[in-house]
Amino acid sequence: MRGAILYGPRDVRFEERDAPTIIKSTDAVIRISATCVCGSDLWPYRGISPVAQPTPMGHEYCGIVEEVGSAVTSIKPGQFVIGSFFASDNTCPHCQAGYQTSCQHKEFISTAQASRLRVPFADGTLVATPDVPSDDLIPSLLAVSDVMGTGWFAADAANVKPGMTVAVVGDGAVGLLGVLSAKQMGAERIIAMSRHESRQKLAREFGATDIVTERGDEGVARIKELTNGIGADAVLECVGTQESMMQAISSTRPGGSVGYVGVPHGVELDGEGLFFTHVHLHGGPAPVRRFLPDLIDLVWNEKINPGKVFDLTLPLDQVAEGYRAMDERRAIKTLLRP
Amino acid sequence: MRGAILYGPRDVRFEERDAPTIIKSTDAVIRISATCVCGSDLWPYRGISPVAQPTPMGHEYCGIVEEVGSAVTSIKPGQFVIGSFFASDNTCPHCQAGYQTSCQHKEFISTAQASRLRVPFADGTLVATPDVPSDDLIPSLLAVSDVMGTGWFAADAANVKPGMTVAVVGDGAVGLLGVLSAKQMGAERIIAMSRHESRQKLAREFGATDIVTERGDEGVARIKELTNGIGADAVLECVGTQESMMQAISSTRPGGSVGYVGVPHGVELDGEGLFFTHVHLHGGPAPVRRFLPDLIDLVWNEKINPGKVFDLTLPLDQVAEGYRAMDERRAIKTLLRP
Repeated sequence: MRGAILYGPRDVRFEERDAPTIIKSTDAVIRISATCVCGSDLWPYRGISPVAQPTPMGHEYCGIVEEVGSAVTSIKPGQFVIGSFFASDNTCPHCQAGYQTSCQHKEFISTAQASRLRVPFADGTLVATPDVPSDDLIPSLLAVSDVMGTGWFAADAANVKPGMTVAVVGDGAVGLLGVLSAKQMGAERIIAMSRHESRQKLAREFGATDIVTERGDEGVARIKELTNGIGADAVLECVGTQESMMQAISSTRPGGSVGYVGVPHGVELDGEGLFFTHVHLHGGPAPVRRFLPDLIDLVWNEKINPGKVFDLTLPLDQVAEGYRAMDERRAIKTLLRP
Repeated sequence: MRGAILYGPRDVRFEERDAPTIIKSTDAVIRISATCVCGSDLWPYRGISPVAQPTPMGHEYCGIVEEVGSAVTSIKPGQFVIGSFFASDNTCPHCQAGYQTSCQHKEFISTAQASRLRVPFADGTLVATPDVPSDDLIPSLLAVSDVMGTGWFAADAANVKPGMTVAVVGDGAVGLLGVLSAKQMGAERIIAMSRHESRQKLAREFGATDIVTERGDEGVARIKELTNGIGADAVLECVGTQESMMQAISSTRPGGSVGYVGVPHGVELDGEGLFFTHVHLHGGPAPVRRFLPDLIDLVWNEKINPGKVFDLTLPLDQVAEGYRAMDERRAIKTLLRP
């Protein structure tokens, strides 16, 4: 079997690896129908989070179950399944509280840019679709595995409710799907912060009512201007830098909420400053598993089409070009088909 | 008129000052029935937040209305009233959202350790009791002005709900009233973190079911031990130091909430660390005005007795001793009667 391996900054190779097998009785092995490159893959790709050794990549996936361990009861060979980037038992107290990415037995899925994948805790991690989907549904079903689930969590963590004014910081795939999520949750006004025309277009398609191109303090000033000096009710932080985090916090009205899902890199929050903003702050690695059944349902019934964020589709063996296109911002998100 | 003035570290004097008068048509002047020393007064008293010049002190108060400006309609001379430490118009969007301490026209009350006080935005700021209270109710009514309202906000911001396990970091007056608030909100288990016997006793009286004397990492380990390794559902941070903040965050279960009301001094939060804790974070200067009607009602009907935190009562002219007793932790909180 071949899969993607990161050797160092901007050096992704598609190489022979051992095919996955059932190791524990709770495992499943799936044949990948589609996988993709995540914005968070770019941190190690760019060398910002260095890798110590050649590292298999990929944590977004959907596909057909090939084999299950002897203890697996709800997932069966032949089913089309989707899972989150963290395997979770879905039974521990943290899972039961809806925080499966803090599962007491969580295991990060890190080898999904390949033709086959071992998934631990198959019963807890995987959700099967009603049937094997038609090909045109696959991009949107794949999106649910992480990027859509993460955008949804950003909106959920920011307490988006019908009628609200929502701002979204970040016009990557997660931010764009944060716009879609806010729209689904009934936001009345959705301000997308973006300076790229193609992304602005998709943001509008997903439900953005306003576009703000300014960043930093100027961006905050624009949000205030658009909201009678009050600030947005909810802000989705979908980047993970100091600037984007401060932009999100400062754009929020007192008592409003920031949902932050961009993995923070070098972010430091001043306690006293935060205190006087009166914002609610919640985020973290999106507990996608909590949302999988509902999001699969929305995609299956064609209520949402998050697969539109994939503006580049490549055969899996061209994975290196998939990374390059995203690194150079030629593509929002690359879908890879084995 | 005489009042308290802070000249520098540990130098509070009781001196002649100009008596307050109506300056704006929305003002009231009240005759103070009782005032007190706040834990936050100790920051400048200890020189940690230095004062640049002799500074009048005091922001907790209740008393009888003596005079109102021509535009005041709901507050009348002769009424017994309580207000928060921030005057607020109670009509702006932030007030309407329940964040009166972020009022667009807020003014900090800073001269309440005196016999008389000017209160801006009297209609928005002050709430009258049903009648002039008997003397024994005054400590608890005074407590509502800040310390009880702040403990209540800590519990409210930490989303305390019936049946929850709640931990309280800080055994000052705010922390102790955080215990009382969590109890009122139906918490099943309340873990007070305290190493002082007299405060432990009051915590138990207010509803604490467990006492943890350890601090820092050891304190966190004890909370985890008491909660089957899960962490508390809600944690009230009532101190404002780096250690107390980290203790609060680390004691909370993933998906749980930290309500923080201790004014942060030198607190820095690492974005990445916070991200992976999955906690909800909310706090700030307590919007006491939001809670005043309900809390006055609870005190008036003797459902709660927050005035128990005052373990030292002095005539106002002994205000310096009131500060000293709290600084040296001989008193939890000093009540001052003009």
